Amino acid sequence: MTYCVGVFIKEGLVFASDSRTNAGVDQVATFRKVSVFEKPGERVMVLLSAGNLATSQGVVTRLNQQIADADCVHSLFTARSMYDATRHVGEVYRAVLEVDGEHVRSQHADPGCDFIFGGQIKGEAPRLSHIYSAGNFIQATPDTPFLQIGETKYGKPIMDRVIDYAMPLGRATKGALISFDSTMRSNLSVGLPIDVVCYRTDSYAVGARVTIRENDPYFSAIRKRYGKALFDIFGRLPNPDWVD
Amino acid sequence: MTYCVGVFIKEGLVFASDSRTNAGVDQVATFRKVSVFEKPGERVMVLLSAGNLATSQGVVTRLNQQIADADCVHSLFTARSMYDATRHVGEVYRAVLEVDGEHVRSQHADPGCDFIFGGQIKGEAPRLSHIYSAGNFIQATPDTPFLQIGETKYGKPIMDRVIDYAMPLGRATKGALISFDSTMRSNLSVGLPIDVVCYRTDSYAVGARVTIRENDPYFSAIRKRYGKALFDIFGRLPNPDWVD
Repeated sequence: MTYCVGVFIKEGLVFASDSRTNAGVDQVATFRKVSVFEKPGERVMVLLSAGNLATSQGVVTRLNQQIADADCVHSLFTARSMYDATRHVGEVYRAVLEVDGEHVRSQHADPGCDFIFGGQIKGEAPRLSHIYSAGNFIQATPDTPFLQIGETKYGKPIMDRVIDYAMPLGRATKGALISFDSTMRSNLSVGLPIDVVCYRTDSYAVGARVTIRENDPYFSAIRKRYGKALFDIFGRLPNPDWVD
Repeated sequence: MTYCVGVFIKEGLVFASDSRTNAGVDQVATFRKVSVFEKPGERVMVLLSAGNLATSQGVVTRLNQQIADADCVHSLFTARSMYDATRHVGEVYRAVLEVDGEHVRSQHADPGCDFIFGGQIKGEAPRLSHIYSAGNFIQATPDTPFLQIGETKYGKPIMDRVIDYAMPLGRATKGALISFDSTMRSNLSVGLPIDVVCYRTDSYAVGARVTIRENDPYFSAIRKRYGKALFDIFGRLPNPDWVD
């Protein structure tokens, strides 16, 4: 299983994804699910994927081939807006499904993927979208400042409590990581390493790009402190007086 | 949607269930999903249900009819062990599906339910089970001291952190309520009132039986204090130093 989250705040964007892939109980592998498309000074885009790995790798490969092909008219580097770029990802995804979808379904497997896709093109504000397995998408707004795909529910309560559009980028990154902690504690199929990409509004260059592995000192410290503090506040709440 | 949780600890059992039923966006109703079967001094059993309401009401009605029928040989009041009683619930559920299942499926609806069922019969230790929509079941153990059905994931992280077999009954009840708070904040289809039943080991009588409604002073207080404290501890954790 996969858990990916994208945060959309005034100061920028945060993308975080685990790297674990399950293709059955005895086949657990680690694959990067984060792709960065960057033209420094002009545009930065980040794609996270959850779902069929062959499909998502096919999408990423096509997107990169288009960029590498000097004759290609439609690519993430020629898109004039993030809206157009997001539609383009959806179209490439549909094209991959067109080729492989029926064959995968005939094996009783699901060829579908979900994507979180966001970034900024010079002249526009940053955008963050969830591209559904149908290829259509929704955009984050200041009222809904984060989007999740994959194993989303365990990590949603803490995001609901702490993420807001006006928060600083570092604090938003911390929030995304705490939501990974909650998810990994409740679902063993989501696991380290976690890939994190931060983008600061109007920088037109990737900011932090960090892979958090076992024993990462920062992540280990906040997991431990958060878990202990949460246990302590739970203990300090009064018990119901109607339980004898 | 429904969220139900059962806690299995040395001191006893806690059952909690929301009461909201969705049968489409414009049809939100409140139905009790908790049934208590009690023969004071000899046995107490509690059933929570999630899924098709017609099916679960059919199961509860049949279980009550059997108890009321003096000639009935197989009922929850004649079962010799909680294992037998749990199997009996599964069989009654299958009998209801036998009658209604195909008709419901022909309307493209799911006739299935999940149940949490637990209690104690004199001479045995308490038992708590999750009866699946197939009618088979698993039992809670000291290593897995809680079971959930319905919209389970939002409330699982806090349960994973705070519930253990050796905790007191009042504290376990508080834990179940905090997991409802997390679920209701993240999913509007789970809502008040919450029905709570507590059972103390070897009491052979229902302990607390409480319905928590809007503005319940205890639940309102712990929700507010927990939310604020959680936000505060999140704020006190350091931000990652690699985000500029």
